[in-house]
Amino acid sequence: MVTLIDIQHAYDRIRPYIHRTPVLTNRSLNDLTGAELFLKCENFQRSGSFKIRGATNAVELLSQDEIDRGVATTSSGNHGAALSMAVARRGGSVTVVMPQNTPIIKVENVKRNGGNIVWCEPNLSSREKTLGELVNLNDAVVVHPYNDERIVAGQGTAAMELLEDQPDLDCIVSPLSGGGLLSGTLCSVKNLNNQVRVIGAEPMEADDAFRSWKLGKIVPNKTTDTICDGLRAQIGTITFPIIQEYVDDIITVSENDIIAAMRMIWERLKIIIEPSCSITLAAVLNQKTIFKDSKVGLILSGGNVDLDQLPW
Amino acid sequence: MVTLIDIQHAYDRIRPYIHRTPVLTNRSLNDLTGAELFLKCENFQRSGSFKIRGATNAVELLSQDEIDRGVATTSSGNHGAALSMAVARRGGSVTVVMPQNTPIIKVENVKRNGGNIVWCEPNLSSREKTLGELVNLNDAVVVHPYNDERIVAGQGTAAMELLEDQPDLDCIVSPLSGGGLLSGTLCSVKNLNNQVRVIGAEPMEADDAFRSWKLGKIVPNKTTDTICDGLRAQIGTITFPIIQEYVDDIITVSENDIIAAMRMIWERLKIIIEPSCSITLAAVLNQKTIFKDSKVGLILSGGNVDLDQLPW
Repeated sequence: MVTLIDIQHAYDRIRPYIHRTPVLTNRSLNDLTGAELFLKCENFQRSGSFKIRGATNAVELLSQDEIDRGVATTSSGNHGAALSMAVARRGGSVTVVMPQNTPIIKVENVKRNGGNIVWCEPNLSSREKTLGELVNLNDAVVVHPYNDERIVAGQGTAAMELLEDQPDLDCIVSPLSGGGLLSGTLCSVKNLNNQVRVIGAEPMEADDAFRSWKLGKIVPNKTTDTICDGLRAQIGTITFPIIQEYVDDIITVSENDIIAAMRMIWERLKIIIEPSCSITLAAVLNQKTIFKDSKVGLILSGGNVDLDQLPW
Repeated sequence: MVTLIDIQHAYDRIRPYIHRTPVLTNRSLNDLTGAELFLKCENFQRSGSFKIRGATNAVELLSQDEIDRGVATTSSGNHGAALSMAVARRGGSVTVVMPQNTPIIKVENVKRNGGNIVWCEPNLSSREKTLGELVNLNDAVVVHPYNDERIVAGQGTAAMELLEDQPDLDCIVSPLSGGGLLSGTLCSVKNLNNQVRVIGAEPMEADDAFRSWKLGKIVPNKTTDTICDGLRAQIGTITFPIIQEYVDDIITVSENDIIAAMRMIWERLKIIIEPSCSITLAAVLNQKTIFKDSKVGLILSGGNVDLDQLPW
């Protein structure tokens, strides 16, 4: 299990290489939700998403020998770009296995940060098979996008900053997919102040974590047909037990509600965020009674959106 | 002429009702321009633009009798919404004469803030005729969007904040249309530190201020066929002399360059801004030698963009 000390050490390690992202508030969203919202803006983070936190932590822990062997991963885009940035700083190279339906902006971000791309089919087995072949061929070191304690510890630093800025939160809502961000959030928040509720928000169209949590065992996604291109992964064997132990609730959200919440944040806050994190606002709007009159932190995980493919 | 004291008094008057907007920096835009940029984010301002500064200053100076008579104005949208917000707080009502080609989001902003809309043709004479009829009919008090010293003083507070946050700027670039923001910027900056250069950025497709400045007398727009819906107005008789006296340069920018700069800011900074202010970045990109190695403030004047009508 990832401890608070692990997260604090991760924070010391990555702090020189990341932004301290702002926490925004917005009166009109508060009026709409009946809650007081605090939006942790990881869309303004380096590489365009929170993924730089975990990736940097993992890469800083690699030996020079491991860097020299080359690093490989699978990614829906943001982890690939972040890992490429972190490895490039150490003078190494990264190969990223990406599904063919990745938004162009995420492909460009990987390339701009020096990553090499190998395409796969947009499903779990093709991802893992392609990555396995790469590792066999090149003896590359794998830094998994979420199922890795170094990644979990790094991602936990976002909620740590949020609680430092806003210590009186009643609740934090995190996007949920492979579980890296949510499990990191749980490991930091529940150890800092276990009165703070932590809730995951997952697309109905890729709800493996919600169903796994209900059943008490990992089950696969039935579909990954969601606009949230960052939330199509499968819950991990390392992240799932953390979620099982600590999470207070998981809310699933429809595609229409995710898109409506995305547009609302763009129009009211004048910031660009991905649907993969507007899902947190959609969860609050869908379950207003749970959040009424509470101080609620939303982790806006990223801002890498293809401006030619907007969903409205 | 608007003095520094006028601007400081305006600031004392409006401070409770406006946001102190952040100044953002971005490494990749610095690399691209060869300058060090400081972006004053009035897109995050209340009502979605800097216009709330001048409107609030003017409205706070109205007597209760004037408020009771009703307030009228013409506006391409942002001034109308800001004025509606400021007047509503004092319990009055506003009628806004708006051109029929106003983006829907700006129409909605006026309505949401309680303003009544009267439509006109998208040209100066129709605007003025419609407003004149309104005033004759209702004895309404006019608060002009820019040709008014109370407005100029209010708009000057944005650059005052920017210089307070970043006192070592070499240069500030402001959008230029009717001249309220640029003349306010000039009145504050040139009185605070006349070493700071101030440059206006105007669309080639609505370049009346540039041509007037070159000729030494006010001439009308030949076209207003620009995507910058906030920059289609005619330079004012109050704002023009201030610009003549103080401005260091006016740079005109093509539509394609305005759109490219807008997209660049959206993608790199993850913030939503109007083309009417991406023109400032476009001006820097067009004239890199002027700005090379300088610290340059850009006033990002607003963020009210119709998300269904993006120019790419």
